[in-house]
Amino acid sequence: MDGGHDARPIVTDAVIIGAGPVGLFQVFELGLLGLGAHVIDAMPQAGGQCAELYPDKPIYDIPALPRCGARELVERLLEQAAPFAPGFHFGHVASGLERRPDGRWRVTTHHGRVFDAGVVVLAAGLGAFMPRTLDLDEARRLEGVAVHYKVADVRAFAGRELVVAGGGDAALDWAMELAGLGASVVLVHRSAKFRAAPASVARMHALCDEARMQFLEGDIVGLDAGVEGDRDALRAVRVRTRSGVVQRVGADHLLVFWGLHPALGPIAAWGLDLEKNQVVVDTATFGTGVPGVYAVGDINTYPGKKKLILSGFHEAALAAFAAKEYLSPGQKVPLQYTTTSPAMHRRLGVSPDLSDIG
Amino acid sequence: MDGGHDARPIVTDAVIIGAGPVGLFQVFELGLLGLGAHVIDAMPQAGGQCAELYPDKPIYDIPALPRCGARELVERLLEQAAPFAPGFHFGHVASGLERRPDGRWRVTTHHGRVFDAGVVVLAAGLGAFMPRTLDLDEARRLEGVAVHYKVADVRAFAGRELVVAGGGDAALDWAMELAGLGASVVLVHRSAKFRAAPASVARMHALCDEARMQFLEGDIVGLDAGVEGDRDALRAVRVRTRSGVVQRVGADHLLVFWGLHPALGPIAAWGLDLEKNQVVVDTATFGTGVPGVYAVGDINTYPGKKKLILSGFHEAALAAFAAKEYLSPGQKVPLQYTTTSPAMHRRLGVSPDLSDIG
Repeated sequence: MDGGHDARPIVTDAVIIGAGPVGLFQVFELGLLGLGAHVIDAMPQAGGQCAELYPDKPIYDIPALPRCGARELVERLLEQAAPFAPGFHFGHVASGLERRPDGRWRVTTHHGRVFDAGVVVLAAGLGAFMPRTLDLDEARRLEGVAVHYKVADVRAFAGRELVVAGGGDAALDWAMELAGLGASVVLVHRSAKFRAAPASVARMHALCDEARMQFLEGDIVGLDAGVEGDRDALRAVRVRTRSGVVQRVGADHLLVFWGLHPALGPIAAWGLDLEKNQVVVDTATFGTGVPGVYAVGDINTYPGKKKLILSGFHEAALAAFAAKEYLSPGQKVPLQYTTTSPAMHRRLGVSPDLSDIG
Repeated sequence: MDGGHDARPIVTDAVIIGAGPVGLFQVFELGLLGLGAHVIDAMPQAGGQCAELYPDKPIYDIPALPRCGARELVERLLEQAAPFAPGFHFGHVASGLERRPDGRWRVTTHHGRVFDAGVVVLAAGLGAFMPRTLDLDEARRLEGVAVHYKVADVRAFAGRELVVAGGGDAALDWAMELAGLGASVVLVHRSAKFRAAPASVARMHALCDEARMQFLEGDIVGLDAGVEGDRDALRAVRVRTRSGVVQRVGADHLLVFWGLHPALGPIAAWGLDLEKNQVVVDTATFGTGVPGVYAVGDINTYPGKKKLILSGFHEAALAAFAAKEYLSPGQKVPLQYTTTSPAMHRRLGVSPDLSDIG
């Protein structure tokens, strides 16, 4: 479903940001009320943090599922949402939110996908999983030029002086791969202990012994850029070693692999009312205070909030009713039950009278 | 578990009134936090209104259960609550709620069962299913004496003049049974159409043809009691027939079988803040305003409330946290996850490290 950089907006009732359990159930609840949805997630598949962190460890507090792994939970929620044929946009980070002149919302992603949506539901959990970054002004200024958190094209590093930072598998794997390509590769990690697989650590030590790369134990404390017309070029990485001495390591590029962490990312700049990085909502509608923008699941906060999946389900249901009323002003949205409502049966594509559970 | 009229109180952390889906999940959520519970329900088994009304019709909006009958839902919730070994008290209507001198709650049932509980959670849905009653002052005054909504002992009616009201199976079955016992039996129903089984209706007409009973089409509009020293005796039932004429039917007893309907019953007299027969709660705690008394599921109301089972699950979770804090003043109740909390694993009786879902 993830095809190219189309600038023509995708028109939809709702854009849901986040394809974790609550985002998936949001698709279902909107669908029951006749609203279609497109779902954006930074990860390459549905499931969110729990499926990412604990795919198979049992969860015990999903109501009426005495024991359920996160992977199974996500499969069940995908099945439940399937009748409403949501559009999924994996690998996309929602970056822009603007009100259109017609009152609808324009949502854009980092990769240039554009949506024209009636409502927006934030179901982004703790945020998108983003690379941990180096907290230095020079690093921010040189990001994508000489400071990198991912590798787009290794050829850019051929014959250059490289510093790779990190102690996990990504850092070691890239350091060793680049050792055969760069003019020099220095691996910098704050400790001589590595989280990477022992075999990789052994291989890295062997490469250092052969002088095909170097390892330096210490913390990155500064970056030296070029001067005058050369300010966009990196010259050196300053590393404070265990002895306390700051060493200047010549470098054209710095590659940082410090793992992923969840961050609100661009959402933090959307002008929503935040409290400790969470979006403040009204418990009657799960609206954010910005008309037509809702927040459900771990991303929101309100008095009594507990970050429980089952609370997110309730929040998604109430947000769906509020969204439906927002999109149909002046119309009363009646509470119907899936057990008996013909309209809901039609939307679900079921004929329960012919198929009672025996 | 339903044994006799014990007056010694049952001491428990929580009494839950109502064994529907939300009451059952309340047992689970309290149990996760280390609190035990006893559950009272007027019905003879767990499940509440949905299991009673639609045991096998599919429900589609239980999160992660794309299709589930009410009976199956209740079985799943009973299984989930089982590790916490709740006490069930079926066939009991909670009648009294009093604060004890020690600040705990004394809960009593119609059948004389007594509980000494730290907290009380109302999960009674639309209320207990109670007989529909005759809305006349005289009927209330004579209830249990000469006006009856159930038959405790048929011998009380031998040789007496009887009026039976209703058009369903209970009314016809009792009218025909009493026809062989009373001095006279008059069946009163507002229409000549009956909800009872056709065979019963045919048999009733035959008994009328044989003058062993009578049928009168009309509405009960008044009761005549005796005068002076005889005020507790019924003399006649006044019936407005289809022609508009009010007829006086001599009667010692009136038996009314108008079916069951859900009613708050005694709970309505407990001094809680009610709005349209629903208990007003705070959405941070699902507390009723009376400290230590909570209300979850269809019985409560708050801004945005939808009577959805999945909302009741969320409400039960937050009520459990609030109850735990209420019972452990000054102690912070941390949010733990069933996936990772050793304390919760101990309470659930599981060892997830040895039993990951594969």
